[in-house]
Amino acid sequence: MFSSKDGRLLIEEVDFEEIVEKTGTPVYITSRKKLEENIRLFQESFGFARMLYAVKANNNLTIMKIFARNGFGADVFSLGELYLALLAGFDRNFILFNGNSKSDEEIEAGIKAGVKFSVDSLDELYTISEIAQNCGREVKIAFRVNPDISAETHPKIATGLKTSKFGIPAEQILEAYEAAVQAGAVVPVGIHCHIGSQIRDVEPFVHELEKMFEIAAELEKLGVRLEFLDMGGGFGIDYEGDGECRVEKFSQPIKKTLENGLQMLKSKPELWIEPGRSLVANTTILLTRVNAVKKAYKNFVAVDAGFNLLIRPAMYDSYHRVVVANKMEKPAEELYTIAGPICESGDILAKDRKLPKVKRGDYIAVFDAGAYGFAMSSQYNGRPRCAEVLVDGGLFHITREKETVGDLIARQRIPEELF
Amino acid sequence: MFSSKDGRLLIEEVDFEEIVEKTGTPVYITSRKKLEENIRLFQESFGFARMLYAVKANNNLTIMKIFARNGFGADVFSLGELYLALLAGFDRNFILFNGNSKSDEEIEAGIKAGVKFSVDSLDELYTISEIAQNCGREVKIAFRVNPDISAETHPKIATGLKTSKFGIPAEQILEAYEAAVQAGAVVPVGIHCHIGSQIRDVEPFVHELEKMFEIAAELEKLGVRLEFLDMGGGFGIDYEGDGECRVEKFSQPIKKTLENGLQMLKSKPELWIEPGRSLVANTTILLTRVNAVKKAYKNFVAVDAGFNLLIRPAMYDSYHRVVVANKMEKPAEELYTIAGPICESGDILAKDRKLPKVKRGDYIAVFDAGAYGFAMSSQYNGRPRCAEVLVDGGLFHITREKETVGDLIARQRIPEELF
Ligand SMILES: Cc1ncc(COP(=O)(O)O)c(C=O)c1O
Ligand SMILES: Cc1ncc(COP(=O)(O)O)c(C=O)c1O
Repeated sequence: MFSSKDGRLLIEEVDFEEIVEKTGTPVYITSRKKLEENIRLFQESFGFARMLYAVKANNNLTIMKIFARNGFGADVFSLGELYLALLAGFDRNFILFNGNSKSDEEIEAGIKAGVKFSVDSLDELYTISEIAQNCGREVKIAFRVNPDISAETHPKIATGLKTSKFGIPAEQILEAYEAAVQAGAVVPVGIHCHIGSQIRDVEPFVHELEKMFEIAAELEKLGVRLEFLDMGGGFGIDYEGDGECRVEKFSQPIKKTLENGLQMLKSKPELWIEPGRSLVANTTILLTRVNAVKKAYKNFVAVDAGFNLLIRPAMYDSYHRVVVANKMEKPAEELYTIAGPICESGDILAKDRKLPKVKRGDYIAVFDAGAYGFAMSSQYNGRPRCAEVLVDGGLFHITREKETVGDLIARQRIPEELF
Repeated sequence: MFSSKDGRLLIEEVDFEEIVEKTGTPVYITSRKKLEENIRLFQESFGFARMLYAVKANNNLTIMKIFARNGFGADVFSLGELYLALLAGFDRNFILFNGNSKSDEEIEAGIKAGVKFSVDSLDELYTISEIAQNCGREVKIAFRVNPDISAETHPKIATGLKTSKFGIPAEQILEAYEAAVQAGAVVPVGIHCHIGSQIRDVEPFVHELEKMFEIAAELEKLGVRLEFLDMGGGFGIDYEGDGECRVEKFSQPIKKTLENGLQMLKSKPELWIEPGRSLVANTTILLTRVNAVKKAYKNFVAVDAGFNLLIRPAMYDSYHRVVVANKMEKPAEELYTIAGPICESGDILAKDRKLPKVKRGDYIAVFDAGAYGFAMSSQYNGRPRCAEVLVDGGLFHITREKETVGDLIARQRIPEELF
């Protein structure tokens, strides 16, 4: 999917510069083949589970459509994501409206769309119940459980810790379901959990699922009929290595835990998972152009994309592999730090990487940028956002046109007297 | 500018809820009076310096226009910011095009607009010289010097450290000016420096300016005629207290250093400063609505704005004062953590704050959100960005309309075959 020929980076069969001629730089480029390979990999390994694509990782509509066509459901986190998921054609029976803070408007839209809800608190339960009754609808819900599991990942994305803002503490959860059984217009049918993102070990997932089964067994006693156990996403990929998610490594122990767990239950709830990163991260590169190179206290390569477009290195100290896209055959010779154009010292895409000699006009490709890349992008420092491209064999499609400076002012209005 | 009446938050003379009726929540609300007070304060304290407003802090056009009308120049960091600055009517003699990574397109636009450049590297110098010659123009430049000064602030925004990506190390700087004197179509007329943001002590600024004068004295020997010394921005405000910048505390020692420094020189360069945060941060609140309250391991208040709209707490652990806008007279009773709607544990606006009892439907105002607030906002989690409002006495103007879900897809294109 990403290879080199005559020293130049190919995306499938397309030379990167063919794309640059159309879109300029920076540009996000996705390989459709890689995306479909990931989908097959998950379908094979997680055949025993229903998969909801976590839209937050990448809400490019074209990518979402590919997931929808392949039978995925969708985890959505806002009215905007719900809207996109409906446009992309996901089956609304398998759209789960997640989130710890939903507005009345979002709840009403979700109810009218007929999707299921993950409920974060009792307060939210009553809001949903009230709005559903006003709409004359019935809503199927799960509660988001906080399982108090610590998984080794960046603290900002470890969501299953005791102190995290998400969910209902495990020891309050039965009470919550009891309240749900009492409340009008809501039907508890699932349990939802998500312990964090970019988790490389399987143990935390196994513990999570075990805890979910314990809760499920209790819920059966309460008379709750469970349709699904949704254990969330979070499967990590190998950013430092080849960018792959070792899907089997996760799926096999989870499968065992599932089989054991189901024996404890009378009902046969489906297992749901909500992968985001592991499906899309390694399908996409962020291609940037070198504006200048300098020897200061370090060698700096100044490129035209920074944390306005890819915030992960600046925000989470994340590692992304980089290559010089027009010098793929050249030997690595010098240490370079790849710096973006943003006004903060933290705007570094990659630190101290050994690369071929870099010059102005070269191109740097940042790998594994398909998850939480464009999705988190901003117009910081007055920078319009870049284009997105889908490569398909020898062809490519611009799936998102780049913004212009006009987009910075389109919604601005200056009061008359200041004109 | 921000006060309370009958227990309700007033912005100047406007009750916050009057605004909410028009814009919904979240919404950024700026007090024009506070902005003009800050401007006067800086004009009085820094009367000896020319002031360039650092557009990156807040590029709302209405706010920019107010700065332009009050005689400010502008520090711009990209083509987009240059475009906005020209629209807002800044005098192009006092627009400085900053940045460590400028594309050819940006450089050409700056040259044609006739603004001055801060040059980050020799590589960039030659690019500017080449493009200027092609345009048949001459460009006035400064070099950005890395002074190797450590100021106490968050490492991500400390820009004057030895290892920072910005500027030319002090010991290479004379060489750089010599190269500039030789290069065609560029005229070195200034020295530029910026040591970081949110710096509360004056000493680092004094050291910075002293270093700049040492360099200036050397440059005079080379025959460089200096028109300005630009010491950048970075004056900190009191986020934990009243949100004010103690401007005099900075201006007085700087004035003395300037007077001493000028005695060492033959020429009389102007002192330039580039404040951003200290001019706009405390003019603006981010107003959010409470979607739910829960007692988990902590008390969480889930509001409708998160790090999609204000990333500073999540990214830099920044502190912002918060109040319950509809319960200003109520006594603080309980500790609450204010959580946004974004899918990450790091999405916390304020931790463990003692507030009056909070309920769904209440409003939380986050103070000092005017700098690096909307400017760094994203559409993460599929959330359209919110409106901005300028209050002026008893009136208010919507200066940026809120986005809709349509804005999430406006530039997307789905390849035919996927339809
Ligand atoms: C509830 C939920 N499900 C799924 C995901 C997707 O996680 P990942 O992209 O790590 O698979 C997230 C990420 O934040 C989430 O919050
Ligand atoms: C070159 C330059 N000047 C001025 C500023 C403004 O800094 P502040 O908003 O802290 O005053 C910045 C901030 O990044 C900057 O990079």
